[in-house]
Amino acid sequence: MSKIENKILTDLVYEKLKAMIDDGVLTPGEKINKLDLSRLLGVSQTPINDALSRLAGEKFLEQRSRQGYYVRAFTDEELVALFEMRGALEGMAIRLCCENATDEQLKELSRCFEGFSFPLDEKGYQEYVHADKTFHEKLIRYSGNPILWELSRTSGYMIKSNMKGLTRPPEETYPEHLAMIKALQNRNGDEAQQMMIQHHLRSRNVFRAKLKQKEPGTP
Amino acid sequence: MSKIENKILTDLVYEKLKAMIDDGVLTPGEKINKLDLSRLLGVSQTPINDALSRLAGEKFLEQRSRQGYYVRAFTDEELVALFEMRGALEGMAIRLCCENATDEQLKELSRCFEGFSFPLDEKGYQEYVHADKTFHEKLIRYSGNPILWELSRTSGYMIKSNMKGLTRPPEETYPEHLAMIKALQNRNGDEAQQMMIQHHLRSRNVFRAKLKQKEPGTP
Repeated sequence: MSKIENKILTDLVYEKLKAMIDDGVLTPGEKINKLDLSRLLGVSQTPINDALSRLAGEKFLEQRSRQGYYVRAFTDEELVALFEMRGALEGMAIRLCCENATDEQLKELSRCFEGFSFPLDEKGYQEYVHADKTFHEKLIRYSGNPILWELSRTSGYMIKSNMKGLTRPPEETYPEHLAMIKALQNRNGDEAQQMMIQHHLRSRNVFRAKLKQKEPGTP
Repeated sequence: MSKIENKILTDLVYEKLKAMIDDGVLTPGEKINKLDLSRLLGVSQTPINDALSRLAGEKFLEQRSRQGYYVRAFTDEELVALFEMRGALEGMAIRLCCENATDEQLKELSRCFEGFSFPLDEKGYQEYVHADKTFHEKLIRYSGNPILWELSRTSGYMIKSNMKGLTRPPEETYPEHLAMIKALQNRNGDEAQQMMIQHHLRSRNVFRAKLKQKEPGTP
């Protein structure tokens, strides 16, 4: 097989594996079985190996000495760190949106949370989860910072599947999202950044409190 | 050669290549010559290939279709983005230091800039550059956030060699560092974070202004 074919195959295998991690088909902590993958995707071990190395570099996978690759699982400490990380990156993203986003992009952001009425039924809840994801992703895209955007696409830190069950209820985050949209419309970067930082730190604090409940007797 | 030996060799080659990029032995934009590396490091192509894939995943290298690996070069737009990125990450780091660092760690941070008197001679300037690097690295380490720390060690975004010639003069950054140290001592996370964000955004603005001077006629 030529090198060019290998490069294209590696890219395909890489995208496929990333999607499998993101969709939870490969679960955190799971060992990667190269032979199974090779059969499933119908490719040789070479592009599989290349893709696995790349995914390890991007922290989606963890390479353990003598044992092979595992889907990265986050410890409770790392999940706490994840909220702080998102606060840092998305706080800067929303500030930069105030500087750089076009009026049309700001309108698009404003429309993310239109039409919700509380209490939400199951369908409304799913729509809210989708709107939430869209809003945060668009903020990063419209920030005009190519490195923030690249990091959000390639970094294992931002994997959304790891966030399931960790988020606060819509009743709590909805007014925060509206307040951020208002700051965006006023192009008030300082205020928007502060709000986003607090938005994620509050989630961190709720998650931390849950952890403490799980371990009674812990100070 | 056994798989175990290969894993250890890959780690060694990986660390060696990262140091070569960081020290500027391999320069931004340079093509990686696998055969040369293989001879230089006295290892086969297998650990070289594994290390190159990992470094591409971490954005130290760029893999171009049909052409191989190149040391990542930052465009002007990406350098601007880099300052914003550092403002985001280190802004959160200094806030978390206010929450989490021990009194002893805060004292250590405070001592980073002791003993400087201006104007600096060449030796003093070198010491200041070192103190600057130490201060920012320790902030990330003492933040208590393992993901920030991991990212600062493995991410191509933080490569310091790319920052040479881009930093502001010590006369300008010294009082900012002292103000941040004061906020740290008061454990005022909000203030410290704001200062750090502005610290890096000011550097960004100076860099942007230099870019405009380079291209007369640009609006």
